[in-house]
Amino acid sequence: MRTHYCGEVNESHVGQEVTLCGWVNRRRDLGAVIFLDLRDREGIVQVVYDPDLPEVLEKANSLRNEFCIQVKGKVRARPEGQVNKDMATGAIEVLGLDVTILNRAAPLPLDFNQENSEENRLKYRYLDLRRPEMTERLRFRAKVTSAVRESLESQGFMDIETPILTAATPEGARDYLVPSRTHKGKFFALPQSPQLFKQLLMMSGMERYYQIVKCFRDEDLRADRQPEFTQIDIETSFMTADQVMEVTEKMIRELFLKLLNVDLGNFPRMPYSEAMARFGSDKPDLRNPLEIVDIADIVKDVEFKVFSGPANDEKGRVAVIRVPGGASEFSRKNIDELTKFVGIYGAKGMPWLKVNDKAAGLEGLQSPILKFLSEDAVTALLERTQAETGDIIFFGADSYTTVSESLGALRLKIGEELGLTSNEWKPLWVVDFPMFEEVDGQFHALHHPFTAPTRASAEELEANPAVALSNAYDMVLNGVELGGGSVRIHDQAMQAAVFRILGISDEEAKEKFGFLLEALQYGAPPHAGLAFGLDRLVMLMTGASSIRDVMAFPKTTTAACPLTNAPGQANPEQLAELGIQTIVTEKATDSE
Amino acid sequence: MRTHYCGEVNESHVGQEVTLCGWVNRRRDLGAVIFLDLRDREGIVQVVYDPDLPEVLEKANSLRNEFCIQVKGKVRARPEGQVNKDMATGAIEVLGLDVTILNRAAPLPLDFNQENSEENRLKYRYLDLRRPEMTERLRFRAKVTSAVRESLESQGFMDIETPILTAATPEGARDYLVPSRTHKGKFFALPQSPQLFKQLLMMSGMERYYQIVKCFRDEDLRADRQPEFTQIDIETSFMTADQVMEVTEKMIRELFLKLLNVDLGNFPRMPYSEAMARFGSDKPDLRNPLEIVDIADIVKDVEFKVFSGPANDEKGRVAVIRVPGGASEFSRKNIDELTKFVGIYGAKGMPWLKVNDKAAGLEGLQSPILKFLSEDAVTALLERTQAETGDIIFFGADSYTTVSESLGALRLKIGEELGLTSNEWKPLWVVDFPMFEEVDGQFHALHHPFTAPTRASAEELEANPAVALSNAYDMVLNGVELGGGSVRIHDQAMQAAVFRILGISDEEAKEKFGFLLEALQYGAPPHAGLAFGLDRLVMLMTGASSIRDVMAFPKTTTAACPLTNAPGQANPEQLAELGIQTIVTEKATDSE
Repeated sequence: MRTHYCGEVNESHVGQEVTLCGWVNRRRDLGAVIFLDLRDREGIVQVVYDPDLPEVLEKANSLRNEFCIQVKGKVRARPEGQVNKDMATGAIEVLGLDVTILNRAAPLPLDFNQENSEENRLKYRYLDLRRPEMTERLRFRAKVTSAVRESLESQGFMDIETPILTAATPEGARDYLVPSRTHKGKFFALPQSPQLFKQLLMMSGMERYYQIVKCFRDEDLRADRQPEFTQIDIETSFMTADQVMEVTEKMIRELFLKLLNVDLGNFPRMPYSEAMARFGSDKPDLRNPLEIVDIADIVKDVEFKVFSGPANDEKGRVAVIRVPGGASEFSRKNIDELTKFVGIYGAKGMPWLKVNDKAAGLEGLQSPILKFLSEDAVTALLERTQAETGDIIFFGADSYTTVSESLGALRLKIGEELGLTSNEWKPLWVVDFPMFEEVDGQFHALHHPFTAPTRASAEELEANPAVALSNAYDMVLNGVELGGGSVRIHDQAMQAAVFRILGISDEEAKEKFGFLLEALQYGAPPHAGLAFGLDRLVMLMTGASSIRDVMAFPKTTTAACPLTNAPGQANPEQLAELGIQTIVTEKATDSE
Repeated sequence: MRTHYCGEVNESHVGQEVTLCGWVNRRRDLGAVIFLDLRDREGIVQVVYDPDLPEVLEKANSLRNEFCIQVKGKVRARPEGQVNKDMATGAIEVLGLDVTILNRAAPLPLDFNQENSEENRLKYRYLDLRRPEMTERLRFRAKVTSAVRESLESQGFMDIETPILTAATPEGARDYLVPSRTHKGKFFALPQSPQLFKQLLMMSGMERYYQIVKCFRDEDLRADRQPEFTQIDIETSFMTADQVMEVTEKMIRELFLKLLNVDLGNFPRMPYSEAMARFGSDKPDLRNPLEIVDIADIVKDVEFKVFSGPANDEKGRVAVIRVPGGASEFSRKNIDELTKFVGIYGAKGMPWLKVNDKAAGLEGLQSPILKFLSEDAVTALLERTQAETGDIIFFGADSYTTVSESLGALRLKIGEELGLTSNEWKPLWVVDFPMFEEVDGQFHALHHPFTAPTRASAEELEANPAVALSNAYDMVLNGVELGGGSVRIHDQAMQAAVFRILGISDEEAKEKFGFLLEALQYGAPPHAGLAFGLDRLVMLMTGASSIRDVMAFPKTTTAACPLTNAPGQANPEQLAELGIQTIVTEKATDSE
């Protein structure tokens, strides 16, 4: 039906007759002449209908925006002065010799020349995706998966599919359930990840597994989450953590080089403890030059209890962020707003200090808490932070977690507001995570319960779980966690010890993961893996502001699809067959 | 942890020290010397431990089958006479210098030297997959998907993901439902195919879409079906049926050439009516030389009502299969069994005729119905079927459907029993399907309701739906439907006409497919597509006898997973959150 794509026609075709298919992107009626911008997947070309063929001109005259048409015409160079250098096809135009309307279009419910509501964009997703920006993102996503597959397959990874209808998995978020008809009263769960299956595949000797696979979490969709998302899932046998990091770092580096022509270089590695200390986050955005500086040692003897309390508490933290040149940027009102902001993270206040004139000593400083600090402490503080005239310092003093999180968030907010964040790519590996976090005397796995500890026997781990480090690693890029993984436990005794530390009873372990524990006793190999969030990776690479913009058919924040009206009513016979009934009947939504 | 894969070590490594990882496939203790067959993903190599290193020998002595170990050793040529030419690594062996036990193995619950029960194979799937035959199938499957992706991407197809949590789709099988927590009382359906989404993507202008995607059908798993299966899903815009067939035929041909070194040649095309007439099936196995031959015209005037009845009925059929040389192959008992067999397909009997001696005329024939047929009819029959001495002829006389289906099945059965089916690859396209089948005065879509008719306007279609042909095409290989597709309806009026013919009310159409109908009015392009069953394709290519053998973790025939015990109990709080309760409570299965 076509000889060329619109976006492909160029000067080499001048004089040729071409047949094009696509949509009327724009139509200009210049009296005797009609100009069409014809759009297809590959781009836009200008078509001109003139009075030499009056019947054809009349047909062209009946076209409207978004009509789907077939054009026959002859390529010619544009007259001088009409060449459009911003357009790939701007040197030529197609003199229209015929036009066939393949399908007419009613006026669109979306206006491509303005911002449309999220709800409408999703309801008419098929139209929203016509916008070249959206088409380009989906195309880019396809290029990413293609490059990932190529990289992994060239390194011997096998694409193996794991089930979607399965048992509850151990990630800890809420599962989507699927009632079974043949086993009434029982339910499948949709996988939160293929974690257990990929470990089983290592026990099968597959050695290098990968899969680009849908995963499901029934969570409240705060922020930028989706009920179904896509993971680049990887597992290996007989490889160390270092090797897994090498292989996957190579993959990501190749990807950026190939698709963005960006060399990410070697990724630095940073222990979790350093990331929390310097950046207050386990996914530090290294583009931002601000850092958190600890000052507990400086203020532990001051009378100001707000500082000396946490400074002398083993679980406390006192720290500051210095914003170079920030003194004039923050009015009282700004500071009040920032204080409110850090309050979200539990900070009960946010003392500050402006260095108006360093040469003037204490006289040159301005701070509501200056009077509570000794001169020695202030001097040490200025030295520690290397503060200069014009700087502002923000203080945090509370539990380690509260100070880290609130100053970590403050750092990002100020960095963005003041435009301090550089326009680079800053990847790193965060390593040496704690095995467990302790909440109210109960240990929780920081990653998941199959993560192996670094250099510790089962006995050592149980003797002192609080200090154990896990053999886990997260890849972080520009403050976004791209992926994470770990060496897994392949030893039955170690797995049992971890379950005991987590307070998972033998019975519960057997019920939930009995098959994995059993599998460990038949010569399970040492294995390790990693999973990347594909949506987030593509979002970063395309500069999209939401993962919704890199998915063809995403859900709303209430996990609904305005296009297909999913979820929908089920008919009672269907439910009876499944052996279930609804206990809350919402009113049916009005039909449109 | 390793320098080489076991299966890779060869004569070029003689004299080198290597480190290998893998599983003890077999251990032979020859007094002072221990031989190990060490297995990894790439193959098996022989390792020898001798008394020169007594400590190492002792460690080797503690090894048992399926222990996971690391071996350090030196490659050496095998002594003459011990070279094993059936083994890729049979020219060499590794003199073991050290061994490390990575994980011990309890005696396996599966015996690799014998057939294991299907239930046990699924319960210990991770062990069953260690069998090289199973590993090889999964590896082959990965090669298939990789080659398919390469072929399609090189032709401009974009891999685009469509949702798993969606609305009910129109394939007509039973949906799996997923209760929504945020919209209590409502349900998502798992897709039976991405049909509507891929059509919407064409309306978005994606032009060439593909996806290798999980689909779901909650059917009773007779024969060789699985609740979740994988489709190679394809959709195109601005392409004719011929072009879609060309593109996908090219893909399959390249696949067979690349992975099996088989040239399938150009696929012949056969109208549905011819396939039913000659082979009694819409997926004829062309490796089988037997054909159905119509004889209604010959017997329409005989007194034998069993024949003349259907022969004079517009919806009847009288036909035969001649089995060359079959007269001596079928005893009365055999024939009785075959009669029972065709009874499954509704045939009320199966007359037969043996040509014991053609030269002897009627005398040379043997048949319980000979007396009912005129001599002219018999002569015409023998001529039509080109029967020779030693042949047997089986008769079918009933409705067109019953005769076609029963003789079609008989043809396959006899072909297989007598070993007539050749050992070749016989692909074809079946085309020109009827648009609708009529059952009790009600029309049903033979494919699905979005399939376009061939050369008919909406008015013509509604005027005479019974004779309309659809623009659909099935790819058939060796009697298996590999894939099927069609040109879709892109015209709103045509789609509305088809819904009317199918008895789908405007209201129902709007409720179920309203978004598709609406989408058709905004310049929907002409589009067409196809979907292949990946599992079935891989099964055929690997010669596996079940699709279960080409899936990593299949379900049982009652749609359960003995490995993970899915489906399982859900806890009551979880169900309450989802706004559902079970109405049939089965007894909890005994814990193991």
